[in-house]
Amino acid sequence: MTNKKPIGVFDSGLGGLSAVRVLKKILPEEDIIYFGDTGRVPYGTRSPEIITRYALDDMNFLCSFGVKAVLVACGTVSSVALDALRESFDVPVMGVVEAAAKKACEVSQNKKVALLATNATVKNGAYEKYLSSISSEYAFMGVGCPMFVPLVENGYIENSCKVTRLFCDEYISKLCDFCPDCIILGCTHYPLIKDIIKSSTKELIGPVSIVDSGEQAALEIKEFLSAGGLLNDTCHKGNVQYFVSDDTFSFCQSASVFLGEHITNVTKIDISDYSYKGKK
Amino acid sequence: MTNKKPIGVFDSGLGGLSAVRVLKKILPEEDIIYFGDTGRVPYGTRSPEIITRYALDDMNFLCSFGVKAVLVACGTVSSVALDALRESFDVPVMGVVEAAAKKACEVSQNKKVALLATNATVKNGAYEKYLSSISSEYAFMGVGCPMFVPLVENGYIENSCKVTRLFCDEYISKLCDFCPDCIILGCTHYPLIKDIIKSSTKELIGPVSIVDSGEQAALEIKEFLSAGGLLNDTCHKGNVQYFVSDDTFSFCQSASVFLGEHITNVTKIDISDYSYKGKK
Repeated sequence: MTNKKPIGVFDSGLGGLSAVRVLKKILPEEDIIYFGDTGRVPYGTRSPEIITRYALDDMNFLCSFGVKAVLVACGTVSSVALDALRESFDVPVMGVVEAAAKKACEVSQNKKVALLATNATVKNGAYEKYLSSISSEYAFMGVGCPMFVPLVENGYIENSCKVTRLFCDEYISKLCDFCPDCIILGCTHYPLIKDIIKSSTKELIGPVSIVDSGEQAALEIKEFLSAGGLLNDTCHKGNVQYFVSDDTFSFCQSASVFLGEHITNVTKIDISDYSYKGKK
Repeated sequence: MTNKKPIGVFDSGLGGLSAVRVLKKILPEEDIIYFGDTGRVPYGTRSPEIITRYALDDMNFLCSFGVKAVLVACGTVSSVALDALRESFDVPVMGVVEAAAKKACEVSQNKKVALLATNATVKNGAYEKYLSSISSEYAFMGVGCPMFVPLVENGYIENSCKVTRLFCDEYISKLCDFCPDCIILGCTHYPLIKDIIKSSTKELIGPVSIVDSGEQAALEIKEFLSAGGLLNDTCHKGNVQYFVSDDTFSFCQSASVFLGEHITNVTKIDISDYSYKGKK
């Protein structure tokens, strides 16, 4: 049994491309529709109400392609708006929270799990809630890292980058007393500065396992599609179509950092044409 | 002759409040309607097309109050979308570019004027164009400072702030060869880190005059209203009403830094209700 429909992936902007990179690797036969809401990025600094409204529009756009499942490759939306998306659409929706939390429980030995994410994700408490639903044994601490997205979006990602290291140290130092042995990167921008985070963590806390939430979500969607007989024919060579809500040129310029390859097939859409008006 | 109508002021978010602060001081008798598009901030990283569309909506909202004039307290919109706003609405519109460029010409002795602003403002070339329309004698150099808005919005504004100083030094060092004696702060967020910019400039270039574009625009709107007999009765105690497109709580929390006073009278609106559909 195969299913030829594409997988939908969306994010507030560029970050979700780090999950697309993993998807392309582990599911090379799948067609993917990616939407980056670059006209309204960032989401992580906004209120739950606005985040939910934007996410419903994004989902509405992806559903116009008849997608078979949607990967919410945005930590903020996954934390804040996943229930709203599931209630409003019949398509299966997978976020990054559950996948990353499950993995964190697997790898943590001292049962202390930390989260680095946007302020909206940390405030929302979705990770904490999901971790405690797995087991009451896990202690949890979230740290909002509001400067990471602008740093990554402006290219401050080299390991030698002094300013990024300073912000890393500021955020990681908040975890010193808690002393976790596992840190979830709860925003899909953060894998791009993973090495800086690792090095800062090693110095300030000691060795920790880093869980990339976007990567875990990609692995989970593979498992889900496989279990449901929803994978595409393995002979098919998957194709990715990219859509954004602002200028395609600057998206193409930055996308290669996240994807590890250059892209040109990006289409600009008007997201206000897909404004969600309630379940049909 | 007096005119009791309010003055409209808008910005992508918080920055424009630094211009409101000046307006309140120099025109205490005026009522002001402020709109901060916090649901779609920032503008400075977006394309001219999106910036223009958002600005038309913002203007449309202010015009629903029957404002007598609008101050565009956003460097990005002033640079990119002023002509579109003037073509689309009959209300007088004043931006920060012309006022700041005029002042820069007054204070510069060596005829070398620099601009610190968002990438969109620098790319657009509005300052350069306006300066050369005043005189061909002025040399100009613009430097995009994309990290300043997130730094200010996240509170990294203390003079002792190491990271802000590092970014300042990075941006200012690009001006070393040009060696201006006047620097325009082309984004209304930047006055909050004026002292850090001054100190970095002094060390890397020498003493320079700093022109605050929001302040200059506020002075110009006073002049305009006065010349047209459009000022309010001097006996009237002006009132400011604040509107935003996202959560009011976080806006109130941050607003005091820009305004120098605490505010509570903030109303959330749905900016998509004011989507501009063409001149009526």
